[in-house]
Amino acid sequence: MSDTPREIDALIELMAKLPGLGPRSARRAVLHLIKKRALLLNPLADAMHAVGVSARECLNCGNIGTTEICGICSSEKRATGEICVVEDVADLWAMERSQVFRGRYHVLGGTLSALDAIGPDDLGIPRLVDRVKTEGVTEVILALNATIDGQTTAHYIAEQLEQRVRVTSLAQGVPVGGELDYLDDGTISAALKARKSL
Amino acid sequence: MSDTPREIDALIELMAKLPGLGPRSARRAVLHLIKKRALLLNPLADAMHAVGVSARECLNCGNIGTTEICGICSSEKRATGEICVVEDVADLWAMERSQVFRGRYHVLGGTLSALDAIGPDDLGIPRLVDRVKTEGVTEVILALNATIDGQTTAHYIAEQLEQRVRVTSLAQGVPVGGELDYLDDGTISAALKARKSL
Repeated sequence: MSDTPREIDALIELMAKLPGLGPRSARRAVLHLIKKRALLLNPLADAMHAVGVSARECLNCGNIGTTEICGICSSEKRATGEICVVEDVADLWAMERSQVFRGRYHVLGGTLSALDAIGPDDLGIPRLVDRVKTEGVTEVILALNATIDGQTTAHYIAEQLEQRVRVTSLAQGVPVGGELDYLDDGTISAALKARKSL
Repeated sequence: MSDTPREIDALIELMAKLPGLGPRSARRAVLHLIKKRALLLNPLADAMHAVGVSARECLNCGNIGTTEICGICSSEKRATGEICVVEDVADLWAMERSQVFRGRYHVLGGTLSALDAIGPDDLGIPRLVDRVKTEGVTEVILALNATIDGQTTAHYIAEQLEQRVRVTSLAQGVPVGGELDYLDDGTISAALKARKSL
């Protein structure tokens, strides 16, 4: 589009790189932003700038925060005896939304992968072992995704820690509100194996 | 999420207001932005700031540009004899991508609507009539959406102009590459009525 101003073209091109947006939805979003300049475009530019300046990884757990040690690691209200291991900050946020876990986290930032040459050091697993030793941890809860890579990583971590501490993982089974007819065979089979007496 | 820093919460909340993004995809997008700070987050903040400062409506046609008169209206390469009337800047961009039309535009910014109290003045229709008088226009092409509101608006504009100038509208018919089996009845019926001899 040779006659579109280059500032607008540049913004569309960058917006199209966001996950979930393609070229068409990026154009729509940019027009929407221009129409709502005072309410959305300018505040969004400022908010991005603020996050760009302040966001950093927690030195202790790998969570994203604005301080050297994140709000969860430094909160006195969080139990120090439990560490929940997650793959990604998005998973940490999902756990937090459920408001059930009141311990601390360890964010791996991925899973072990021979193909991508990602080893235990890349995921901070030695640091996790250190934390278990020094923070008085009594239980490590593995909340990794139920994928092959996630489960491989979970087994590796369990092997490293099982001599020192209780290692658990999230239960597998029927999701709350789930209908059997819509579940995959693997989930039904896992739920049946893990059946409980009422 | 009480333990997420407020800068990040604020950014997620604003991102979720973009068309095509909801709360979940806004969270994903923000994590992606933080991970790609140098490549995406900072450039995007700058690009938004640049557009926020420079974007403005063309005084002549209503297109979005960075100058008082947009690049299309001020280009000497564009034919002055033809004006293409579109509802929205997104439609203007769609026309430009097809690279067939080499005249100028008139962006209405919506359609006539008794329900929303949008009248001819709100859409700049008197200005369009003025332009037809003063710019030596020989043809006005109505490229409005094939919706009820779009067609009502097209008929109104045609009535205002048909004494002064040739008024045409985009042809309706089978889309290029379209399969009859997947077309709605209205399109097939329009294509049949407008059939051409080979």
